[in-house]
Amino acid sequence: MSAKLILLRHGESEWNAKNLFTGWVDVDINEKGVGEAKRAAELLKSEDLLPDLLHTSLLRRAIHTANLALDGCDRHWIPVQRSWRLNERHYGALQGKNKAQTLEEFGEEQFMTWRRSFDTPPPVLDTDDEFSQFNDPRYADIPADERPRTECLKDVVERMLPYWESAVVPDLKSGKVVLVTAHGNSLRALVKHLDGISDADIVGLNIPTGIPLYYELDENLKPVTPGGRYLDPDAAKASIEAVKNQGKK
Amino acid sequence: MSAKLILLRHGESEWNAKNLFTGWVDVDINEKGVGEAKRAAELLKSEDLLPDLLHTSLLRRAIHTANLALDGCDRHWIPVQRSWRLNERHYGALQGKNKAQTLEEFGEEQFMTWRRSFDTPPPVLDTDDEFSQFNDPRYADIPADERPRTECLKDVVERMLPYWESAVVPDLKSGKVVLVTAHGNSLRALVKHLDGISDADIVGLNIPTGIPLYYELDENLKPVTPGGRYLDPDAAKASIEAVKNQGKK
Repeated sequence: MSAKLILLRHGESEWNAKNLFTGWVDVDINEKGVGEAKRAAELLKSEDLLPDLLHTSLLRRAIHTANLALDGCDRHWIPVQRSWRLNERHYGALQGKNKAQTLEEFGEEQFMTWRRSFDTPPPVLDTDDEFSQFNDPRYADIPADERPRTECLKDVVERMLPYWESAVVPDLKSGKVVLVTAHGNSLRALVKHLDGISDADIVGLNIPTGIPLYYELDENLKPVTPGGRYLDPDAAKASIEAVKNQGKK
Repeated sequence: MSAKLILLRHGESEWNAKNLFTGWVDVDINEKGVGEAKRAAELLKSEDLLPDLLHTSLLRRAIHTANLALDGCDRHWIPVQRSWRLNERHYGALQGKNKAQTLEEFGEEQFMTWRRSFDTPPPVLDTDDEFSQFNDPRYADIPADERPRTECLKDVVERMLPYWESAVVPDLKSGKVVLVTAHGNSLRALVKHLDGISDADIVGLNIPTGIPLYYELDENLKPVTPGGRYLDPDAAKASIEAVKNQGKK
């Protein structure tokens, strides 16, 4: 048996373009992101990698990307499951803040710690902050004392893996082509798990927006090719470089 | 206990506008339909009838309408289930045919029998017809000898009700606000069931595109107000009149 998994980070969002920390703030993709989602559909079609099942986060930018990508490859009708466990990392008090200004205000070391440290979360976000989603009805099922107010990547791994095991793995084992449409950090958490990347090495890994990342997995759900394969490797490489420089605009 | 059910027929489709029989042909909504779906979102918001769960057919025009309507009322993240049992009536050999030409060719009696008779289906569609979906992968789970090649409304009632009972009713009984986004005839089948409309009387009932039809249901899932309530009654009335005249363009 080999299982087919496609990871797709949402297309560029309104706040990616503005260089703001987004986290759980529910911004949409922008015009470029719409184009990326439609291009993802073309890539899936050209490789005949048509998803049988979709898993998404509860955030508009991932849902909208998935809707466009699936519509474009005539798979708009497949079953879908959504979970907050696939959401972007909660960026705590940084949500809504400009990345360049934050870099300037706090210095590169603190900035990079908040952005990429495995186990240091940003400061907690007040529940009544204008960028808090603490009382959003979509999170009502998460007990209040477990509902994130900030997260580091370690927290994302811990809340993402139970969903991976309980919801995604059974679909993969049933032989279906599974699409997971999510976010930079929830997908980094998943790639860390799949490829067995260390806490130290995951810091240097970025996932570009809108380019399907295909993993063929063996019977133990280990990648046949470590790191998987971007369906547009050149675009992926260029985009990864751009992400690295985000704070520096 | 009272349950809240919202029925929404997809917005105007490319083929509604061209006056073609559509059935299971997977055409999208047109620009007017997009506007109707967004307007449906406004109506849901203004009445504070925000869906907790979505059920759709497997057809693009219903899925696209649901995506837009939910996005517009900030409910894009709710759980969704899709089923072919909510699909439009399969129009058999009429699929892809012009309604006015069909009326002219076969005469009003035959035309109205095919369009509105409860138990007389149009001729069967060849499985290799350009407008057949017999081999579409989304219907692969339906045994070939049960996969529709034409349907009358009675057939739609019979294949829709098991989904209603097994999938929608449990959601309603759990107290959730349930949105069903579907089609002229699958919704007629459902309304027939809800309101106990006779086989004879259902012939005269039309459901307009894109206007939410709200049913409050009692503990036996009987409508508190027979016929429910359109969230825009004037637009519904005008649209129903237009549908009645469709063959006569």
